[in-house]
Amino acid sequence: MIMEISWEQSVTYSINTIYLLFSAYLVFVMQLGFAMLCAGSVRAKNAMNIMLTNVVDAVVGSISYYLFGFAFAFGDNSNPFIGTNFFALKDVPNTSFDYSFFLYQWAFAIAVAGITSGSIAERTQFSAYLVFSFFLSGFVYPIVAHWVWSSSGWLSASLSNPLFASGAIDFAGSGVVHLVGAVAGFWGSLIEGPRVGRFDAFGKPIQMRGHNATLVVLGTFLLWFGWFGFNPGSFDKILVAYPSTTNQGNWTAIGRTAVTTTLAGSMAGIVTLFSRRLLVGHWDALDVCNGVLGGFVAITSGCAVVEPWAAIVCGFIAAWVLIGLNILTLKLNFDDPLEATQLHGGCGAWGLIFTGLFAKEEFVIQVYDSVDTGVVRPHGLFTGGGWELLGCQVIELLVIASWVSATMGPVFYALHRLRILRISVDEEIAGLDISRHGGYAYNAHHDEDQPRFYADYLRMQD
Amino acid sequence: MIMEISWEQSVTYSINTIYLLFSAYLVFVMQLGFAMLCAGSVRAKNAMNIMLTNVVDAVVGSISYYLFGFAFAFGDNSNPFIGTNFFALKDVPNTSFDYSFFLYQWAFAIAVAGITSGSIAERTQFSAYLVFSFFLSGFVYPIVAHWVWSSSGWLSASLSNPLFASGAIDFAGSGVVHLVGAVAGFWGSLIEGPRVGRFDAFGKPIQMRGHNATLVVLGTFLLWFGWFGFNPGSFDKILVAYPSTTNQGNWTAIGRTAVTTTLAGSMAGIVTLFSRRLLVGHWDALDVCNGVLGGFVAITSGCAVVEPWAAIVCGFIAAWVLIGLNILTLKLNFDDPLEATQLHGGCGAWGLIFTGLFAKEEFVIQVYDSVDTGVVRPHGLFTGGGWELLGCQVIELLVIASWVSATMGPVFYALHRLRILRISVDEEIAGLDISRHGGYAYNAHHDEDQPRFYADYLRMQD
Amino acid sequence: MIMEISWEQSVTYSINTIYLLFSAYLVFVMQLGFAMLCAGSVRAKNAMNIMLTNVVDAVVGSISYYLFGFAFAFGDNSNPFIGTNFFALKDVPNTSFDYSFFLYQWAFAIAVAGITSGSIAERTQFSAYLVFSFFLSGFVYPIVAHWVWSSSGWLSASLSNPLFASGAIDFAGSGVVHLVGAVAGFWGSLIEGPRVGRFDAFGKPIQMRGHNATLVVLGTFLLWFGWFGFNPGSFDKILVAYPSTTNQGNWTAIGRTAVTTTLAGSMAGIVTLFSRRLLVGHWDALDVCNGVLGGFVAITSGCAVVEPWAAIVCGFIAAWVLIGLNILTLKLNFDDPLEATQLHGGCGAWGLIFTGLFAKEEFVIQVYDSVDTGVVRPHGLFTGGGWELLGCQVIELLVIASWVSATMGPVFYALHRLRILRISVDEEIAGLDISRHGGYAYNAHHDEDQPRFYADYLRMQD
Repeated sequence: MIMEISWEQSVTYSINTIYLLFSAYLVFVMQLGFAMLCAGSVRAKNAMNIMLTNVVDAVVGSISYYLFGFAFAFGDNSNPFIGTNFFALKDVPNTSFDYSFFLYQWAFAIAVAGITSGSIAERTQFSAYLVFSFFLSGFVYPIVAHWVWSSSGWLSASLSNPLFASGAIDFAGSGVVHLVGAVAGFWGSLIEGPRVGRFDAFGKPIQMRGHNATLVVLGTFLLWFGWFGFNPGSFDKILVAYPSTTNQGNWTAIGRTAVTTTLAGSMAGIVTLFSRRLLVGHWDALDVCNGVLGGFVAITSGCAVVEPWAAIVCGFIAAWVLIGLNILTLKLNFDDPLEATQLHGGCGAWGLIFTGLFAKEEFVIQVYDSVDTGVVRPHGLFTGGGWELLGCQVIELLVIASWVSATMGPVFYALHRLRILRISVDEEIAGLDISRHGGYAYNAHHDEDQPRFYADYLRMQD
Repeated sequence: MIMEISWEQSVTYSINTIYLLFSAYLVFVMQLGFAMLCAGSVRAKNAMNIMLTNVVDAVVGSISYYLFGFAFAFGDNSNPFIGTNFFALKDVPNTSFDYSFFLYQWAFAIAVAGITSGSIAERTQFSAYLVFSFFLSGFVYPIVAHWVWSSSGWLSASLSNPLFASGAIDFAGSGVVHLVGAVAGFWGSLIEGPRVGRFDAFGKPIQMRGHNATLVVLGTFLLWFGWFGFNPGSFDKILVAYPSTTNQGNWTAIGRTAVTTTLAGSMAGIVTLFSRRLLVGHWDALDVCNGVLGGFVAITSGCAVVEPWAAIVCGFIAAWVLIGLNILTLKLNFDDPLEATQLHGGCGAWGLIFTGLFAKEEFVIQVYDSVDTGVVRPHGLFTGGGWELLGCQVIELLVIASWVSATMGPVFYALHRLRILRISVDEEIAGLDISRHGGYAYNAHHDEDQPRFYADYLRMQD
Repeated sequence: MIMEISWEQSVTYSINTIYLLFSAYLVFVMQLGFAMLCAGSVRAKNAMNIMLTNVVDAVVGSISYYLFGFAFAFGDNSNPFIGTNFFALKDVPNTSFDYSFFLYQWAFAIAVAGITSGSIAERTQFSAYLVFSFFLSGFVYPIVAHWVWSSSGWLSASLSNPLFASGAIDFAGSGVVHLVGAVAGFWGSLIEGPRVGRFDAFGKPIQMRGHNATLVVLGTFLLWFGWFGFNPGSFDKILVAYPSTTNQGNWTAIGRTAVTTTLAGSMAGIVTLFSRRLLVGHWDALDVCNGVLGGFVAITSGCAVVEPWAAIVCGFIAAWVLIGLNILTLKLNFDDPLEATQLHGGCGAWGLIFTGLFAKEEFVIQVYDSVDTGVVRPHGLFTGGGWELLGCQVIELLVIASWVSATMGPVFYALHRLRILRISVDEEIAGLDISRHGGYAYNAHHDEDQPRFYADYLRMQD
């Protein structure tokens, strides 16, 4: 028998749906932010290529996430490793969630490959991109999401989780999203090797500046805007009151999450501004942009369960993690055009640890347990919560690094051996846009039909 | 006697207003999306001109829609052809709607002329633009909106509509917005003729690439973002429960609409990516962008009343419609710099037909009828709903094509005969920006005061 | 004893938090809008510099506003001049407001310095920027916000305010935000003097066009988008019903505010379009953009308490104020690269006066007093409300001009005397980006490592 829906239920569903849908729209803006950030950070001759990868992430990701990605991630069949229902949105909506939840998770899924595409920018064949992107966002990422975010996942944060009676806290995905994308990018970039001319014969780095700083700033601000959907939006529901309070509920924690996100990114940006001034001698807008993003990546794991002052600590250290890793990668002649490995990987890993150090018990209980059982809930080591949570965080970190390495490493290596991973040196010097995409992104000089001729010429050489 | 407002009513009004206003803001972003898409798709020498038309659409449209456009469209005087009250927001707010509804519809109205301005880009006098834009968004479009969307409109979807007891379903305006703009653009572009140099002496097309692919991608993503306001937002109210369900209401259908929109655009993008790869030999980001937009235009009519899988079918065919029409227009030496006629017209028309084929009865009843009367509600032909709805869709298609042709055709022809439609060949070669707008959009070479001198020189030649 | 929270309260908090947070996100977009507008309006050689100032406003402002700015502005200690609690978010959340209110006010605070940075663009040392920005957004602005917007402020709009039993109405901050930023910019620009080459030996202005009109249009539309958060968002709460009405509440006034904002900006844009066509002979997109922004600045004070038709009057005059001041500043050889002094100062001042002339009693009571006491509530002079409100508006105008002059004037003068305000002529001609920020914003010609060499060279000269 079908029960009629009450007014109270209708109000609850309406409020939560508005909140989740508009958050999803904001997260979607991050795809645009990535596209602009990446485009501005590469050389003009590869701008079209990298923007196409961002568009393709979105359109291919939509279909694959609809068909099976969402099912792998959020199938609620009590399997702790992989979900196996809700393929092609079968049985959606149901009593647990509605279409809006799918849309929100879709916006997350398409972001992952965008991180990776930054690491392998300016030298990768587009067909290789299609292969790894499909595999990463359709399979590798959803599995991790299932482990950490599905209620049946083996890493999920819950008092009933046998893992130290704690589980890992990765609220919006420093690990699930950013570390996953970065580890994949690390292997891709390592196997491909640096761009032609990035290091001279003595291993000394030659600077390769992006072609448009305006796009970098545009992308950074759009990512900031989108992060307000990414972090606070991860609550899914706003209309949830907290027991034993007079006026607090998810709405309080959501506002606090927006504040912690802002403070962490801002502090990381300030540290980068002054430290880079000391290190390289000028005020560099692009460094500050990357610093801000590093702070966001780091706070993404703990944003909902830490105090604002802790977020400032988080951002402070995130900036140094990024600066240190950037120096290290230069020394090791590792070339990641967008610093994506260092930024999303390094700061993402720090974010997981940070949560294990600073998570506040009151917030953890409100966000994850609903009720206070009276027993101590594992939380941050520095906030008196013991080693359990920190242990789970380290486990998540190691497991993600292993899982993504074990899956994406072979994929990139196979593409490499099949000679469909990297473009030829000639094409790389000419630029991907002219050799693969029919022309440059910019046509300032009105020589409109020349590019395609050249592309035809190049194809004839094949 | 004035009744006091209850808490339940206050909550309902607040929730629905939040939903409608933020949707309106998203639709407004489409104006920015159009501006960037258009600017990037034209040559650098005309970038300022086309951006100015987008700004002018917004500012002129605000005043004209306030003064009379809204009244023509949503006057509720039981006249099925034109509304005749609410001029200058008189009697607003009232029991049917509030200011937020006006703002939402305003954002739609300013979009129409933007579509048309793409078709006639790079060769139209700005004063001619002002005339047709004012006429199109102030009169031609609002009338169509009244027919289809006003409850008293003769095409409105309702069981009590004498038109096959069905009426046409054009939920967010594949026909009302996109087809209207495209038909107007078709006549403008046809009467003006192609740009100088677009086809050689033998009718062979010479490619004229836009000057900035980054702007095209930026515009496409902004339009995608805005479409989340355009399609799901067209429900107007989110707090509406569906009878005989336990947890469904407009919030469910709104989420589903966001999903169908995403899937249709994505599928169209994928099809375009691979088909263009096969047809022209490279992966083209700009083609994919247009493909995505074509999918959005097509799903706009039926987005609220079809299953997600049907949306994928919709996008699949939309891509081929666009590809086919682009080939056809090249053969016919028809020059639409933005492909707006093909994209908004072709995919818009397909969207109307698609709805007549795939609309699902359950969804149609929930979205349009509120209650299930027990009799069969006309819906999609392929979903067992008979020919009635498809007939209404075809009627809407034909009536829109006729009405816009009968009104905008003469306007463009009159402007043409008065010699105020097209710019001179000299000006066209020099570019609109330097000849009409005081200088180029870009000043990379720091010759700051040169452009105006040249403009003065050109004016002296007049 | 802690009371449990009721479902009605939870709904109320959830609705109001959604509204305020998403409004805050929109206001944050204005920071991006400023960055793009400023970048496009300066010469290419200074684009990186001005974008960096916008990023730094956000990141430095976050920390300073968190530490003390918010406390100065909204400390509710009954001190009418300065707030002295809530430092570092201590005692937040409380019964009056939650984190979301802080985030909303933060987005306002970071906007102020952005206005000023436009006035002193293209010639200011970055370290001077850091000093004044910190002082302005951390101290000068919060004090004014306290006076006008804190319930204990001496200028706050309230029947119980001894200032004519009225107080000033500056709903979203024509004075508090825009005039403050503009007066600061006026002093900075005046003390620095014009850019090298801006006026020739005879005082005749030499045009210095911005380098990218596309960015200007992008910025303008983003600011428009953000203004929907700035003006309608300033209601803070949407779930507030109005007594003696059947269906009205803050949701009605919020929609109306969005409409008045749109109409004022649009009318100002139209007037600028046609008047500039008459004055300089061409249709200028950039003028229209500035006109639109002038209309927005002007309506920001009275947006919530005037009829839509009055907003059109407001925009009409705002355009002429801007045109007149631009002519005047040229004659006086005053150089403000972004016209920020004229736009935010002139139109901001007009906005304060406008509210004193056109505020409607019914709206003032609904927005500010909650209950109608029966006595006449001071409102607009032209709408029959007497001189009281207009008097308060003039007082706010004069007090802001005096306060900002008395604080920021000495700051800029001290920086000037210490020779850390303006860059050297050599650096100004070379451009800030190459001399201070490690390279140009654009690298179209692939000479990637040259810029830093030149920067090193310049530094060696120091």
